[in-house]
This record gives sequence, C-alpha cells and structure tokens, in this order.
Amino acid sequence: MGEFELIRAYLADVGAPRADVGLDVGDDCALLRVLPGHELAVSIDTLVAGVHFFPDCDPVALGHKSLAVGLSDLAAMGAEPAWATLALTLPKVDREWLAGFVRGLDGLAREHGVRLVGGDTTRGPLTISVQVHGLIPAGEALRRDGARPGDLICVSGSLGGAGLALRQLLRGQPPEAALRARLERPIPRVALGRALRGLASAAIDLSDGLAGDLGHILAASGVGAMVALDRLPLAPEVAHAVSVGEGDWALPLGAGDDYELCFTLPPERVSLLPALMQQVGCPLARIGVIETGRCQRWQLPDGTAWNGRELGFDHFASES
Amino acid sequence: MGEFELIRAYLADVGAPRADVGLDVGDDCALLRVLPGHELAVSIDTLVAGVHFFPDCDPVALGHKSLAVGLSDLAAMGAEPAWATLALTLPKVDREWLAGFVRGLDGLAREHGVRLVGGDTTRGPLTISVQVHGLIPAGEALRRDGARPGDLICVSGSLGGAGLALRQLLRGQPPEAALRARLERPIPRVALGRALRGLASAAIDLSDGLAGDLGHILAASGVGAMVALDRLPLAPEVAHAVSVGEGDWALPLGAGDDYELCFTLPPERVSLLPALMQQVGCPLARIGVIETGRCQRWQLPDGTAWNGRELGFDHFASES
Repeated sequence: MGEFELIRAYLADVGAPRADVGLDVGDDCALLRVLPGHELAVSIDTLVAGVHFFPDCDPVALGHKSLAVGLSDLAAMGAEPAWATLALTLPKVDREWLAGFVRGLDGLAREHGVRLVGGDTTRGPLTISVQVHGLIPAGEALRRDGARPGDLICVSGSLGGAGLALRQLLRGQPPEAALRARLERPIPRVALGRALRGLASAAIDLSDGLAGDLGHILAASGVGAMVALDRLPLAPEVAHAVSVGEGDWALPLGAGDDYELCFTLPPERVSLLPALMQQVGCPLARIGVIETGRCQRWQLPDGTAWNGRELGFDHFASES
Repeated sequence: MGEFELIRAYLADVGAPRADVGLDVGDDCALLRVLPGHELAVSIDTLVAGVHFFPDCDPVALGHKSLAVGLSDLAAMGAEPAWATLALTLPKVDREWLAGFVRGLDGLAREHGVRLVGGDTTRGPLTISVQVHGLIPAGEALRRDGARPGDLICVSGSLGGAGLALRQLLRGQPPEAALRARLERPIPRVALGRALRGLASAAIDLSDGLAGDLGHILAASGVGAMVALDRLPLAPEVAHAVSVGEGDWALPLGAGDDYELCFTLPPERVSLLPALMQQVGCPLARIGVIETGRCQRWQLPDGTAWNGRELGFDHFASES
C-alpha cells in the first residue's frame, strides 16, 4: 500500500453516516442531497503550521480544531452541520500523527452528525483546509446585516481565554489544561446558533476578537455600538489580567480564537434570554446596545471611555 | 487598507453572477440554493508550489488551472458547474501576481457560469485549494462503478501532451506554446460530461494518467480491460516519442494532468459516437473493451502484449 493509499484508508470512514450522502470518498466527486426547502451554507478555513498552530501541536486537538472553526461559522449562520471536506497537505506520512488527527476530526464530526465526504491529500508544508456544509430552512439564516439601533448586543460563554493561553505558550509558560483547551479545542456554539434563528437580528462568530468581529456586524448593518466593558464575560484568569494596572482590555477584545457567538437581539426579545440559556446550556451575557451612527464606543467600569489604542486602532470607526 | 483586505477586494467579484447565490463572499458562510430534483456534486483539490507547479509559473495560468482541475472532476460526474470556494495561502502579497491569478480564475469561471462564493486567505507557503460545486439531476451522475464486460472504452482529446510538456520543462527545454498549454491551461471537458449522462456506463477524468485512472474504473466496477495501444489518440509530439526505440508508452499511459475524460459505453450505444463528437466539438477515440476478470491488458501495435514495467507496475492487476 502506497503512502497516499494509506492516508486515504485513514480518511475513508470519518464522521457520522448520513442518509443524504449518495457517494462519499472514492469517486471524482461526492454526491449530496440537500433537504427540500433548505439553503446550503458553506465555509472554508485554512490552518497553516507555524501561523495558526505550533508545529508540535497535539494532532488530536488539531483535528478537532480544523473542523471546529468551520462549525463555528455554521453556528453563526444558524445552520445545521451536515458534511465536511478536507484538503490536507503533509510534509511526510507519520502514522501516529495521522491517527491522532483523524481521531480528533472524527470525534467532533460524530458529535455534530457531520460526515467527511471528500478530500485531497498532497505533499507539501503542513496545511489543513476544511470546508463545512450546513443546512438552513430557506430564508432563516442569521446574517451580519440585520442589527438595528436599540438591539441588545450579547455574547456566549467567555472571552479572552484562547488569547491568554496563546500568550502563555509564546512566553514558554504552559497554560493550565482548561485554559489551553480554550485555544486548542474550541467548542463551536452550534446549538445556540440554531436556537437563535428567528430571534437574533444579526450574528457572527468570534474568530478574530470581539472588537473586529462586532465591527463586521456594525459595518454590514450600517450602525454603531456602545459596549460596557464591565459586562464582558471573562474567565477568571482573563479577569485577573484585565484588573491589573490600567487594564489589559486588548486581551478579551482583540485576541481571537474564542469561537463564541456575538449576536444582536431586538429589545422586545430580551426577556427570552434566560430560557435560551437554559435550552442551549451556555451562559449568555448582554454587553451593550446598538446605536445609530457608525462608531464602536467602549465604556470603562468607571464610566469613562476607553480609547482602544492597545488594539492598534486610533479610533473605532467601523469598517466601511 | 490592510494586506488581507486588499486580497479580499480582489476576490470580491469573481466569476459569473448567479441567481441561486443568496450570499457570497462577506458573511460567515455563503448561502446557496440547490435546484429541486438535483444532487450536489462537490470536489476539492490542492495545488502546492514546487509540487504541482513551478513557483515561477504564470499566475494567470495558475488561476485557470486551480479551477480547471475541479471542473474536470465535475465533468467526470456529468455535473453542471455552479459555485467555487478558494482557500489561498500566500507567502506575501504581490499585487501583480494576485491580479494575474484572479484574471485566470475569473476567466474560466465565467466561461462555465461559475461564481466564486467564498474563501479564506492566509499567510504561509503558496498553496491553493479550490472546491467546486455542481448540480446533477438526481440519479443521473456518471460514476466509476458501472462498467460492464463488453462495454467500449473511450477517451476524449489526446493523451500525453501535459506529461511531455512537463518533461521538457524539467530538462530546461521550454515547450512549444500549444504543448505548454496542455500542462498549464487544461480544458475541462464539461460539455462532454454533461452529454454522457444517460449514455456512459462509467466515467473518470484523467488526472493521474490513463493506466491508473482506468484502473479506478476497473476496481470500482469489478472488471478488467484490454486496450489497443495503436488506438490511443496521441498529439504529434507524443506520437513521435512513442515511435522512437522500444516505444515510450509510459508517456501517454502514466503521465497525468491531461484532464481528458475516459468513459465506457455499452456496445449498443457506440453508433452514437459520431453525433456526440459533433455535439461537444471534441475528438473521441475508442481505445479498448471492458472484459471479465480484473486485469488491465495492453496490446502493442504488432499484436503482442506490453508489460507496462515502465509505469512502475509489475503487472496490471487493478486496485482492490
């Protein structure tokens, strides 16, 4: 068996079997059936060794994260995950690495009922592209462009944990296991995204940091925002970093990789938040409000404005 | 404008506008509508600098080829091309290179009515993954597993040209323009694939060379084949290489990148070949016949058997 046949054998049965897959790995194309009355949501993401992950990263975690970042995009649209494809570029064939990578990918795929339906394996610098495919009842997708003045701004889970773990790793201080998992094994908020259909006016996943990602909602919707920094949900370690000295707000606002959802909710639906939290089993925090104009404004706990220079912005005019 | 905003601007309007695209580049996912009664065919392929193309390759040709290899997979299934996504990893932002790459991609996409609906751009070693998406009336896809003993084996166009161009480039002899185009700007046989629906019993595209790719049909269908080498359609330069000495049959049989279609036709449909050629405007050659058993056999012009050692096979038992 050649090296690439070996890889194909590892990838031949990954994820949950699905009745809507006509053909998966092993022909020129996979053949898929989209549920009538539904739209197809697709997103592709690439992770490059030395850029998005440390080359010695645990392969199980890497397999998990390669799929998680795409599932997080599906969650942000309110889509039901269905299928994935994988373009895997490997410098050499290392069976142990490959078995670990597939284990991580398969575990998360099965958890979300996703089938790996195709892929391409090539030789070259370690690079992983995963495309995810999800289904949404036609017209119900959560988009970035629906936020209106007066809508409440909410985020799931907690912010800054992945950024803090990365900072510690770059300093040569291995982070505590739970914090490290925030960076290496993010949990895509799929159930939350699904539950937000018909409720949220806009949504995005936090891959690049709240300041930038909320900025995308503001730009697409043509609105501004006021965010109260003392309302940001922070993990204890992150809260500590923020509480020291002048406050390291760049950590929860500018560091990426949290893969939480940020969404806006028309004010008449705010009373639904407690039931929603109960239903999806994750904390949801109200952090601010959508305003007219096109500025992002941040209010420090003492009521004064934060200027955000630590994020590399001179001011917070949203992107146009 | 940051570097990656610049890249996104280049990729914001690539390919033909389509009414079935609800959202393209610029949200967490693209939103797509699959025609009722149709199946979705998807395929992802990666090209790596220094592995699949010379790092100094003309970017326009590279943009073309990045999409062409995927369209060839759709052609092999009989699918109608619809959408593409691009995962582009670049070592640096070179506007001239990027403009050329997008021009090549856009040109071929428009020719086939394909819209670029999403992508991800990252920094790293030059790597290009394109996923193509096509539509096929449900149940009409051309698969690899339908070849039956007695079916005729046919190929489109001509074989070995891409392999000869690559050989010349590796020897430092720039190939003549038309031959070089066979390697760098392959023409996916989309119209032929579409026309073969309901006619061919099996089909595959020739990306790895006829011996290997026909082998995939034989393995999937559980059959063997006899191919008459004097019936292979060869470009004149390739015919010359084959005619010298003991005959360089590894060139048309083992070199990849031709992106022609190989298909099998039940004998009662062979009379349709001339009309089919007329309809799709490309030559079609009958090169052999499907047999029982699981061997690939090759007949030299003098009637004796060719042993295929030049391909690195000891014998031609098909893959299992």
